[in-house]
Amino acid sequence: MKIAILGTGAGARQHAARLSALGHQVIVGTRSPDATLARTEPDMMGTEPFAAFHAVHPELTLVTFAEAADAGELIINGIDGTNAVAALTALPAASLAGKVLIDYAVPYIYQQPVDPQHSWPTPWGEMPRLDPVDTDSLAEQIQRALPDTMVVKTFVTQEQETVVNPGEFGGGDHTMFLAGDHEDAKTAAREILTAYGWNDIADLGALAAARGLEMYAHFHTALGLALGSRFGVKIVR
Amino acid sequence: MKIAILGTGAGARQHAARLSALGHQVIVGTRSPDATLARTEPDMMGTEPFAAFHAVHPELTLVTFAEAADAGELIINGIDGTNAVAALTALPAASLAGKVLIDYAVPYIYQQPVDPQHSWPTPWGEMPRLDPVDTDSLAEQIQRALPDTMVVKTFVTQEQETVVNPGEFGGGDHTMFLAGDHEDAKTAAREILTAYGWNDIADLGALAAARGLEMYAHFHTALGLALGSRFGVKIVR
Repeated sequence: MKIAILGTGAGARQHAARLSALGHQVIVGTRSPDATLARTEPDMMGTEPFAAFHAVHPELTLVTFAEAADAGELIINGIDGTNAVAALTALPAASLAGKVLIDYAVPYIYQQPVDPQHSWPTPWGEMPRLDPVDTDSLAEQIQRALPDTMVVKTFVTQEQETVVNPGEFGGGDHTMFLAGDHEDAKTAAREILTAYGWNDIADLGALAAARGLEMYAHFHTALGLALGSRFGVKIVR
Repeated sequence: MKIAILGTGAGARQHAARLSALGHQVIVGTRSPDATLARTEPDMMGTEPFAAFHAVHPELTLVTFAEAADAGELIINGIDGTNAVAALTALPAASLAGKVLIDYAVPYIYQQPVDPQHSWPTPWGEMPRLDPVDTDSLAEQIQRALPDTMVVKTFVTQEQETVVNPGEFGGGDHTMFLAGDHEDAKTAAREILTAYGWNDIADLGALAAARGLEMYAHFHTALGLALGSRFGVKIVR
């Protein structure tokens, strides 16, 4: 399948490399391919320049967001939450209409300074706040902005390295979640998850449940810091 | 131990009955014992009148919030999130000072009408919103209001029936979480959890992590509705 991945961050790279290894034709989209390839320094999260990653994965095509979306039969949105709705709605409508779009972003807002009363320090700085939160979600915002696209939220409860390789710990015996208003989109997401190695996939229902998946981020972060390791959650009944 | 449980709702009753069965002296506090005992109809959640529960558990003492807090060596807060801070700060300071207080509330706000764009219908009505959320938590609000009390957040990721009896499913092999700024309070909470039957208890760190535990409610609700059954989460590493 031709899969477009919009975004060149650490998560997007994990999906691009894994889907390519699984035999898909992967097209990576970025705002400006020239600017993306010209960067020579790690970003603020310490992620190596894209060019270094691309040198190891020359099979990945790097084009503009619009060209990638147009070419993709299925879209994976790896644009950060702050910019996703604006970047997606700037694309020609036909490039996304009728297609499945998988969104995995946590809509973090890095806002300083923080009221000391509400400070939540972490090893990498203050815990960012979420926007939207509680009564809305990024996934729903994207779905409302793109009514002819079929949005599904998944991947978001795991580190991107373990989304694409759940067997990294616990023998892979843990659970992945998805939510969406379109059954066809969920089926497409399940096929990718199964190819990644997930064998326990829980459907949380309508896309409104993406609120719970995005808000899960604070729990996930606190537990990851406390454990000092990656982890998964296995649903027990 | 003398344990005060503030509140007479379904959750408070589960803890009261279970702690009493474990040999503790349980004192239940309510705003007005006469009014609580006079009710003859189920509440809005379908919970039977307290008098019917009390008839089966005559060993439980029912007194005012202030009398219960004064008598308790450890406090379990079962007052709903909307009223908890006001009710707790109305008590004589000495009745709570120096004591451990376990809080398990989800700070739901049942607010109608809901913007149709943000509607999240459930079998029992609209999903309530959370207040506080994201940059604060009810547990932190209580801790700030009661600086001489040692607040610990726990229980909140499970139905109250399974908090007190984790073996109800999965052979009890799932995980309970806690967060707090006082190690003594966490130790006290762990002792109660262990007596309830929990053998996997994860400490999420500082009380700020209560944000993640409270926000977990939307994920928990969506998954419970999707599964149609109670469930637990087992942390897998």
